[in-house]
Amino acid sequence: MVPVLTPAPALRRIALCLQYDGSAYCGWQRQRNAHSVQQTLEQAIAGLDPQGPNRTMAAGRTDTGVHAAAQVAHFEAAGPIPPERWAKALNGRLPATIRIRAAVEVDPSWHARFSASYRRYRYTIYNARTPNLFLAPWSWHRYQRRLDEQAMGQVLESMLGEHDFSAFQRAGSRRAHGRTTLQEVRLERQGDLISVELQASGFLYGMVRLVLSQLVAVGEGRLSSSDFERRWRECQRVEVKEAAPPQGLCLLRVGYPKPVFPRAAWYDCQPRYQLEISDSPDLQPGSAQPFVSSAQLPPGGAPARR
Amino acid sequence: MVPVLTPAPALRRIALCLQYDGSAYCGWQRQRNAHSVQQTLEQAIAGLDPQGPNRTMAAGRTDTGVHAAAQVAHFEAAGPIPPERWAKALNGRLPATIRIRAAVEVDPSWHARFSASYRRYRYTIYNARTPNLFLAPWSWHRYQRRLDEQAMGQVLESMLGEHDFSAFQRAGSRRAHGRTTLQEVRLERQGDLISVELQASGFLYGMVRLVLSQLVAVGEGRLSSSDFERRWRECQRVEVKEAAPPQGLCLLRVGYPKPVFPRAAWYDCQPRYQLEISDSPDLQPGSAQPFVSSAQLPPGGAPARR
Repeated sequence: MVPVLTPAPALRRIALCLQYDGSAYCGWQRQRNAHSVQQTLEQAIAGLDPQGPNRTMAAGRTDTGVHAAAQVAHFEAAGPIPPERWAKALNGRLPATIRIRAAVEVDPSWHARFSASYRRYRYTIYNARTPNLFLAPWSWHRYQRRLDEQAMGQVLESMLGEHDFSAFQRAGSRRAHGRTTLQEVRLERQGDLISVELQASGFLYGMVRLVLSQLVAVGEGRLSSSDFERRWRECQRVEVKEAAPPQGLCLLRVGYPKPVFPRAAWYDCQPRYQLEISDSPDLQPGSAQPFVSSAQLPPGGAPARR
Repeated sequence: MVPVLTPAPALRRIALCLQYDGSAYCGWQRQRNAHSVQQTLEQAIAGLDPQGPNRTMAAGRTDTGVHAAAQVAHFEAAGPIPPERWAKALNGRLPATIRIRAAVEVDPSWHARFSASYRRYRYTIYNARTPNLFLAPWSWHRYQRRLDEQAMGQVLESMLGEHDFSAFQRAGSRRAHGRTTLQEVRLERQGDLISVELQASGFLYGMVRLVLSQLVAVGEGRLSSSDFERRWRECQRVEVKEAAPPQGLCLLRVGYPKPVFPRAAWYDCQPRYQLEISDSPDLQPGSAQPFVSSAQLPPGGAPARR
């Protein structure tokens, strides 16, 4: 007897734009004995699409405690759910600490990670003396000194372009080299809140939090600007000891040469926090003005590498 | 034998300015079989001051799920802890869902509740189609229609002054009458975020959330402005059925004739959330401008009652 072969179902590639609260997870990536975003998401997909492979691939693997405002992932769907229904269907099964903002069908050659042209991270610092409950889950509270935002902005700008950033690479990376292109840097202070945004073709393992710990040391006068620059230009990884805590960090967005989602789904959807009051340590009169330092590579100014 | 009488320790009255995440508690007030802010705070005080009565009194009793940015409470301390040390000492014992922003010694005649001249609440509405993880714990997500902020601001202004607001009083109140003085109202829209602030000498039980459910019905065109006004002027409690959900509500601050805390501790310390993107339903071109509607009683314009 000839066995009846059921034809393999046609798979459709679905791209998801999603947010998560990093404090609830061991990070994006599936791990033994720990609760990951990837595993939670794949279980929800499996419940809706039991015939599919239920494997997801993300644009960036965030660490334990790091948030995402618009992470991007893709998976293969075998079942009949129309692409535009996936967001609502998944939100009905996911815990409140993960939200899908959009789902679209993409070409099978499109890849959440390899098709991306940049990742952008935002780090939020709360520079006031008194703790604030509303900011604690999303920021690093630095309360002893008023950070010098001008000094921080200047050293940040020195990093623009393609460089070897091995000084800011955490141990355990499987990357062959430490080169990457920093496409844009931005530092903003509004009252007691400082946000630092870094956009790059790709980031080294743990890079943003290592940069931030050094940047805050410059802002607090514990590290000179020239020592900051020497450390990374000379790839002095051994001198870069601490990482800034994860809850201040958020994967803000992922860029693609052709946008795959409607802009409202993925563009800067972490709120900017603003406070009416100021409680900065050592505040000099007149120094509470809003401050922005921003620099970006000219279009085509340097080749983007990953 | 004559018993040796230990003299009662001299008690000092300590005022606290505190924040809490309402989602973790059944509200301010101590209840059987439920986790209250009051009980959690009193346990922390008892751990530091075992000789004291360890009873707290708050300016306003918030409901289950309602947040506080600057609640005020007082208690009597018997031990040697200096007043200025209480904030840090309590924060070391309290869960992260309660933060003390300031502690000061006050006169024994000063009372957190009876000395207060106003309470101010803020309600936050997120009026976009797509859910946002960062706003979900602090807002009411209304996604079906774009709210008409001008209509909402107008009906809100009609409520200014001293009136009988029984229409907005939840069942179970022990209040003898429904009169109170609304001192200031303010409605602001920034993109997809709307905040409504109400300041009154005192609030009826459940008042702000009942007002908000009616106000949103006006904003969504489900209730006319004249029906809104008729309902409360005629004390039609039976027509005011739903309450807006608690997570959008925050006790913003409490006012006293003479401020007891440094301004940085209590003034508007819930962040204002801002989003770069707009994802409003039914957005008309050009209607995304910031909007503020604000009205307040003239100084001494009407007597404040409680």
